Amino acid sequence: MLSKREVFDGVPEEYLSHKERYENAIRNSVVAFSLVRKMQEEGKTSINNYRDVVGGLLGSSVLRDGSPLGLHYIMFMPAILNQANEEQQEKWLPRAWNCSIIGSYAQTELGHGTFIRGLETTATYDAATKQFVLHSPTLTAYKWWPGGLGQTANYCIVVAQLYTKGQCHGIHSFIIQVRDEETHMPLPGIKIGEIGAKLGLNAVNNGFLGFDNYRIPRTNMLMKHAQVLEDGTYVKSRHSKLNYGAMVFVRVVIVFDMVNYLSKAVTIATRFSAVRRQCQLKAGETECQILDYVTQQHKLFVSIAAAHAFRITANKLWLTFNEVNEQLVEGNLQRLPELHALACCLKAVTTADTAACVERCRLACGGHGYMMSSSLPLTYGLVTAACTYEGENTVLLLQTARFLVKTYQQLDSKALTPTVAYLKTAAAERFCVGWSNTTEGIIRGFQVVAMRVIIMSTFNEEVQEMSRTVSPQLKEVLHQLVDLYCTYWALEKLSDLLLYTPISQKEVESLRLRYEETLTNLRPNAVGLVDAFDLRDEMLQSTLGSYDGRVYERLMEEAMKSPLNAEPMLQSTLGSYDGRVYERLMEEAMKSPL
Amino acid sequence: MLSKREVFDGVPEEYLSHKERYENAIRNSVVAFSLVRKMQEEGKTSINNYRDVVGGLLGSSVLRDGSPLGLHYIMFMPAILNQANEEQQEKWLPRAWNCSIIGSYAQTELGHGTFIRGLETTATYDAATKQFVLHSPTLTAYKWWPGGLGQTANYCIVVAQLYTKGQCHGIHSFIIQVRDEETHMPLPGIKIGEIGAKLGLNAVNNGFLGFDNYRIPRTNMLMKHAQVLEDGTYVKSRHSKLNYGAMVFVRVVIVFDMVNYLSKAVTIATRFSAVRRQCQLKAGETECQILDYVTQQHKLFVSIAAAHAFRITANKLWLTFNEVNEQLVEGNLQRLPELHALACCLKAVTTADTAACVERCRLACGGHGYMMSSSLPLTYGLVTAACTYEGENTVLLLQTARFLVKTYQQLDSKALTPTVAYLKTAAAERFCVGWSNTTEGIIRGFQVVAMRVIIMSTFNEEVQEMSRTVSPQLKEVLHQLVDLYCTYWALEKLSDLLLYTPISQKEVESLRLRYEETLTNLRPNAVGLVDAFDLRDEMLQSTLGSYDGRVYERLMEEAMKSPLNAEPMLQSTLGSYDGRVYERLMEEAMKSPL
Repeated sequence: MLSKREVFDGVPEEYLSHKERYENAIRNSVVAFSLVRKMQEEGKTSINNYRDVVGGLLGSSVLRDGSPLGLHYIMFMPAILNQANEEQQEKWLPRAWNCSIIGSYAQTELGHGTFIRGLETTATYDAATKQFVLHSPTLTAYKWWPGGLGQTANYCIVVAQLYTKGQCHGIHSFIIQVRDEETHMPLPGIKIGEIGAKLGLNAVNNGFLGFDNYRIPRTNMLMKHAQVLEDGTYVKSRHSKLNYGAMVFVRVVIVFDMVNYLSKAVTIATRFSAVRRQCQLKAGETECQILDYVTQQHKLFVSIAAAHAFRITANKLWLTFNEVNEQLVEGNLQRLPELHALACCLKAVTTADTAACVERCRLACGGHGYMMSSSLPLTYGLVTAACTYEGENTVLLLQTARFLVKTYQQLDSKALTPTVAYLKTAAAERFCVGWSNTTEGIIRGFQVVAMRVIIMSTFNEEVQEMSRTVSPQLKEVLHQLVDLYCTYWALEKLSDLLLYTPISQKEVESLRLRYEETLTNLRPNAVGLVDAFDLRDEMLQSTLGSYDGRVYERLMEEAMKSPLNAEPMLQSTLGSYDGRVYERLMEEAMKSPL
Repeated sequence: MLSKREVFDGVPEEYLSHKERYENAIRNSVVAFSLVRKMQEEGKTSINNYRDVVGGLLGSSVLRDGSPLGLHYIMFMPAILNQANEEQQEKWLPRAWNCSIIGSYAQTELGHGTFIRGLETTATYDAATKQFVLHSPTLTAYKWWPGGLGQTANYCIVVAQLYTKGQCHGIHSFIIQVRDEETHMPLPGIKIGEIGAKLGLNAVNNGFLGFDNYRIPRTNMLMKHAQVLEDGTYVKSRHSKLNYGAMVFVRVVIVFDMVNYLSKAVTIATRFSAVRRQCQLKAGETECQILDYVTQQHKLFVSIAAAHAFRITANKLWLTFNEVNEQLVEGNLQRLPELHALACCLKAVTTADTAACVERCRLACGGHGYMMSSSLPLTYGLVTAACTYEGENTVLLLQTARFLVKTYQQLDSKALTPTVAYLKTAAAERFCVGWSNTTEGIIRGFQVVAMRVIIMSTFNEEVQEMSRTVSPQLKEVLHQLVDLYCTYWALEKLSDLLLYTPISQKEVESLRLRYEETLTNLRPNAVGLVDAFDLRDEMLQSTLGSYDGRVYERLMEEAMKSPLNAEPMLQSTLGSYDGRVYERLMEEAMKSPL
């Protein structure tokens, strides 16, 4: 399965047309999802199994630029599970489960993203026919972005403003058939297609969807929470905040995705840097491995540390989420705001950091990082998308800030939940305790500036915990990684530390020294550390990052797969060649009415 | 000419296959270069005319993803002009001029970029036949990257290690025929092709080139400077540093390119932000323009200021270059190190800043910035490439730093040239003069930390100069732009100012206030300021950035051009449709030996 990249006549997908890539994606997706079905048959029905196949290391190797069937598993089926009542689940889940129907999930509109209260699509109940009338009153009301919606799906969960008895009750979800199950033609009243080429994720078949007074049965509103009765009476949901859970889940999944992409990128760049040589220190000597330059180490090593830090923090968030989820089911919503803020913040910080780190890894490979065959441009395309989807990062950070300010204002009156307990210490310690250039000292400093402190302290605590059982050699390296992560960010956020903690100029200098020493100390283990991510060549799919280091051979082998190299002279390009091709082209061009 | 984007059957290029894009690029290039020929016929033979057509606003609109004929004009012909002797120029220039031959320029090898002394390709003189034998001893010796070399060029300037009489004389340039002029087939001994798909610049037809003991006449070595006589005697060049000029020229051109790309990106993002609305401040009100948010202003406005700052500084560098060039011709090399450092530094800073700014503009457009039809992903692809080519940025910054340190160490013994005169002031003033939150105060602070000070002070001086003649209203806006640029970077580089200047915490707070006030003051003129870049819709080619603000209409119109939307149901994808397509695909997939 892992060698399916070139299923399309042996030509890598980057050479195909948009349409061919879609055809390829459908074929690869079906292969990938047959694995999901197998797992289902073996009784592995947890959502984690999909995660592995669709978004995890395995999935992102086969479905390198996303999948048109992804949303069917990640959003369509979970939405039915979470929002449909039992009767509805019985009706729809088995058909979705065995792919008799293929679904998508449509919330965002052409003119409306972050501010979901502003969605324009309406679902108006008509008690006479017991139907909802779906309508897109404007162009900006068209659904825009849903994966698989373009040509792939025949059903879709649609979020729309619910109107009944002349009153608007805000947004609710509806399951809507968009294409005929037999002919796959769009149904009357449905305007549907794909949104066009994007920076990345071009295999996802993102679509648009508009409604022209399109009617669905009343029972197609997902009614686990709120309901509309036959006579049009609206019955409110008891727990309006229960949907937070799904949002938190998706964001945790994103953090794990970031860990995968970051591990990939830094593995590729580190291995390349061990192969690539540049400049002789003495005439006649072999050129140095670029990995020996401190500038290169500075570009790469923090990504190794960050991948571990993110994974450990995401694991903890996942555990916290499960705890809070149990409380939610019991009706206890107390920790929801904290969990929401935590998920917002981690999603924003990890996606932004990962995008920056992946791009730095790419640039650290020089020109070769610009080759699609390095896999680095594709990886950046996937990662930077995550800065925008499922909560735009700037908005998420503002939400986090609001939560922190609110908590800080209530410091005296309120018991603090574990993840924000540091605010109390911080308020008390600000400027009162001296600076210390130790990991703990740096973390204390970051408690004061309230930045990345959760990632740092979680990473540090977990490594302390692990240190008890591992070999002294491994313990040393683990501590070096924590050290590197903390000193790196202390230097990056130095202005905040200088403004709000008592760190002195002299301590800054020794912090810099300590950072560079840590880079030097990590150098001998750098390749070992990325090998330890244990990413098979088939998962990396990179000319620069393979385990055997045959960088230049692979670059040439990949180049030879370009269709432009299929014949020594491109007949098709230059027409019937008579030795005057440019002159003839020029002559023709001169005739153009410019 | 500006409406040629869709010459290929009305389908935008992002939907084409790699091969179709190349074919398209050849056609578009010939149209574009017919303009060059017209200009030549009208007697406009300056290199600036090529610059406008190939790399300028005009060129980058028609040749959106580069051109396979670009290097013919930008490198091949200039190399003949600068490095060939008169006899050689007479032989080659007329044929290159009228495109009887198409050339490329090959220096970088698969294994060697920055460290050009490490190039492996050899040119060994054989006095018996009066020929040079070109050879690629290893795979890493293959030339890699030259634009147009893949399938387009039939000649190439090749940089190789010159051997004669058993001795190596370092790298020299040779003009080499690589394809038959009649049949366009590669000549025996030549291994040639394209290097494959890249993050961007996919219309450039970058190629590789290897030699298998390939013989050329002695007279094909470019002999304006160094020479090899018939008997193999090597005659050294008198001015080994004369080639610096070409390098500086190319880097100045890059800075101007950056100004174009940055103006484009910020025009698109600013106009979009005036159209896009998000969140109601009060229920029932129209949603706000996102351009009214200070977070959005923070993302965008500095790019408007930077575009002006870069253009002004590049103009000054260009003037300095011409001055120094005249001195060079007279044999005065004194200002060469300074000019070289200046060009290195400006190239590195402007490409890195522009890449960051363009990507920020893209992300500021949310999901829609991810659409290829926004033109922002393509623009980023072009800009980020410039961080690596023509001098990798990290290496350039190290060279700049070395020059500055060297100058600083000789402060007392040496008269300082104009652009580094500030170092003397800086050395004297460090910590001695108080901080002042004025433009001049900030620039003085940056003199101490030796960062961006040339851009800041050039920008400020030029605006002061212009202020004498413009209206009071324009004067005010110009000063706001300088202010914005300086306060923005003061806050970005705050840790250096806190460490090395006497700026206080209170002054930092008022600096922040001043920055936000400047954003607010610029807001009413923001759209006017980007309109003033005067970029026609045909140059922007962006669904988000057009003058009339019809963002959503254009997004939908562009989406409809996707070949996937050509038919309501894709027969080709789903095969002969019987309503069980996914089931059948699944069944097939289940048969696969996984």
